[in-house]
Amino acid sequence: MRNTILEILRAGRDQYISGEEIADKLGVSRTAVWKHIKEMRAQGYDIESHARSGYRLRETPDALLAGEIRHGLKTKIIGQEIICHEEIDSTNNEAKRLARQGAKEGTVVVAESQTGGKGRLERQFFSPQGKGIWFSVILRPRFLPQDAPKCTLMAAVAVARAMMEFGLQPGIKWPNDLLYDNKKLVGILTEMSAEMDGINYIVIGTGINVNIEPSDFPEDIREVATSLSIMKGEALPRVSFFQSVLQALDDLYVRVQCEGFAPVLEEWRKYNITLGQEVKVIGVRDGEVYTGKAVDIDEDGALLVDTSKGRQRVLAGDVSIRPQRGKW
Amino acid sequence: MRNTILEILRAGRDQYISGEEIADKLGVSRTAVWKHIKEMRAQGYDIESHARSGYRLRETPDALLAGEIRHGLKTKIIGQEIICHEEIDSTNNEAKRLARQGAKEGTVVVAESQTGGKGRLERQFFSPQGKGIWFSVILRPRFLPQDAPKCTLMAAVAVARAMMEFGLQPGIKWPNDLLYDNKKLVGILTEMSAEMDGINYIVIGTGINVNIEPSDFPEDIREVATSLSIMKGEALPRVSFFQSVLQALDDLYVRVQCEGFAPVLEEWRKYNITLGQEVKVIGVRDGEVYTGKAVDIDEDGALLVDTSKGRQRVLAGDVSIRPQRGKW
Repeated sequence: MRNTILEILRAGRDQYISGEEIADKLGVSRTAVWKHIKEMRAQGYDIESHARSGYRLRETPDALLAGEIRHGLKTKIIGQEIICHEEIDSTNNEAKRLARQGAKEGTVVVAESQTGGKGRLERQFFSPQGKGIWFSVILRPRFLPQDAPKCTLMAAVAVARAMMEFGLQPGIKWPNDLLYDNKKLVGILTEMSAEMDGINYIVIGTGINVNIEPSDFPEDIREVATSLSIMKGEALPRVSFFQSVLQALDDLYVRVQCEGFAPVLEEWRKYNITLGQEVKVIGVRDGEVYTGKAVDIDEDGALLVDTSKGRQRVLAGDVSIRPQRGKW
Repeated sequence: MRNTILEILRAGRDQYISGEEIADKLGVSRTAVWKHIKEMRAQGYDIESHARSGYRLRETPDALLAGEIRHGLKTKIIGQEIICHEEIDSTNNEAKRLARQGAKEGTVVVAESQTGGKGRLERQFFSPQGKGIWFSVILRPRFLPQDAPKCTLMAAVAVARAMMEFGLQPGIKWPNDLLYDNKKLVGILTEMSAEMDGINYIVIGTGINVNIEPSDFPEDIREVATSLSIMKGEALPRVSFFQSVLQALDDLYVRVQCEGFAPVLEEWRKYNITLGQEVKVIGVRDGEVYTGKAVDIDEDGALLVDTSKGRQRVLAGDVSIRPQRGKW
């Protein structure tokens, strides 16, 4: 209902539309319309009202509301269903719950804040109210579980594309961290439920630090985290940035389903800041540490590192890049 | 409580033990002991009772009861926790529920019957009351999701070992079907929940057709399913067969965690009936069909098939073996 009111107001953005006209179109009373307008104002919509002329939409809020995110979105799979929460434990947990209940491919769960945002390996993920884009996407791909890790590279490329559109030069550290000034802008956590013959669902969780000031970060992550607004020197519109990310992800995913991951890996190489660098790898399971030169990713998305003991193929691990003129 | 009574009776299997002695050891009344004895009889325990002499255990039932399965089991990881159900929707579903709630590695869920037993690719799995071993094991391995498919080969090898102990020659069709007379004895369904950096849990579901007569099978699967009792010409003790499987699985899994999957793949080759044969492969996702000679499995457990168009690497698919002197 509210989305329809919004559409009517958007359609005649610069002119007043009478409450009666809206009420007629919706088949409800003018009082009902007024109630919805009041609630929309509470969500941040700037709606003028005149006793005689009716309502006029002056400005939409930069809030992660389904109606705003969907407005103008031209995706084929991603975001046909968008579920917005003001606060949630973790969008990945919610997306997994929905996926188990049969939510369809492309469903997006987004929240203004997460109380238990999580990163890789049960690490916490800082996700403050209204300052980022904390979201998860449910995919039900036809490829095998072995291909799933490349989804994480695909998600990083999607965010990189959006950054380009907003005039920001992306830098992806293998496998999927987007960095600026050697600090983290974006975190991605991909989870899956699979049989050996196929994937039940993949949930790609992405946390984008959009408009976070240095002082907003808790002290313990201030040295390692940054935001798009810090990088750009001004705040970014969250809704349109989010739309760009969803659009890119949709485009990449549709292509992957037809052509496989080769184009994604190629684009990943374009945005990466890892290859050619001296890197330190810490195995996530065994804690083994080694250094070497990152030379490429292979067709599985694994990082190839030339060490003094020969070439290592890194499937999972914490990789850090040697600072220029720096020591480990 | 009941397990303790059982232990006391077992310890003195050939002699009577007075109700008073049992009651004293447990710190309960003789009436309480009597109630438990009555319930154990209902479960199938043959317990003699004499007004003067007390109780004597004559025979234990061949029922999938935790006390029976655990008795004499020497596993390190598998089956420290065994949860038995008379009837359940699917042991895999229950094991996944438990795994999500944090159940520990090695937990076994077993049922006398499944109402919604499932095989690969959402296929139904026939699991009649008291005639098979329908169970699932929760693993929390340290290896990466990419290695998970080999767990399914490991489970097939575990059942093969148990068959050998019971004088039955196993034949594994890639990846994990155990066949006799070209009909299925055992089905295995492996599911997992994972992040890209590691596995949250793997559930290996195994359905073993133990004492099923040809006429027990529904008509639509009579031509493709068989049982260990049909193969052996007599009924098998389910509890001890199950113990052999758990013991073998434990042994294999402990070894995999130390040495990787190479020994499992080697043993799989020993029991397999696929390699060297002409096979037909139907891709499970794309439905693509091709034929060729199965030559080996590679280190990922994938089946290598030499076709007229060169070598194919099969990661998932339905494989059938060309009957001798037969046509497709």
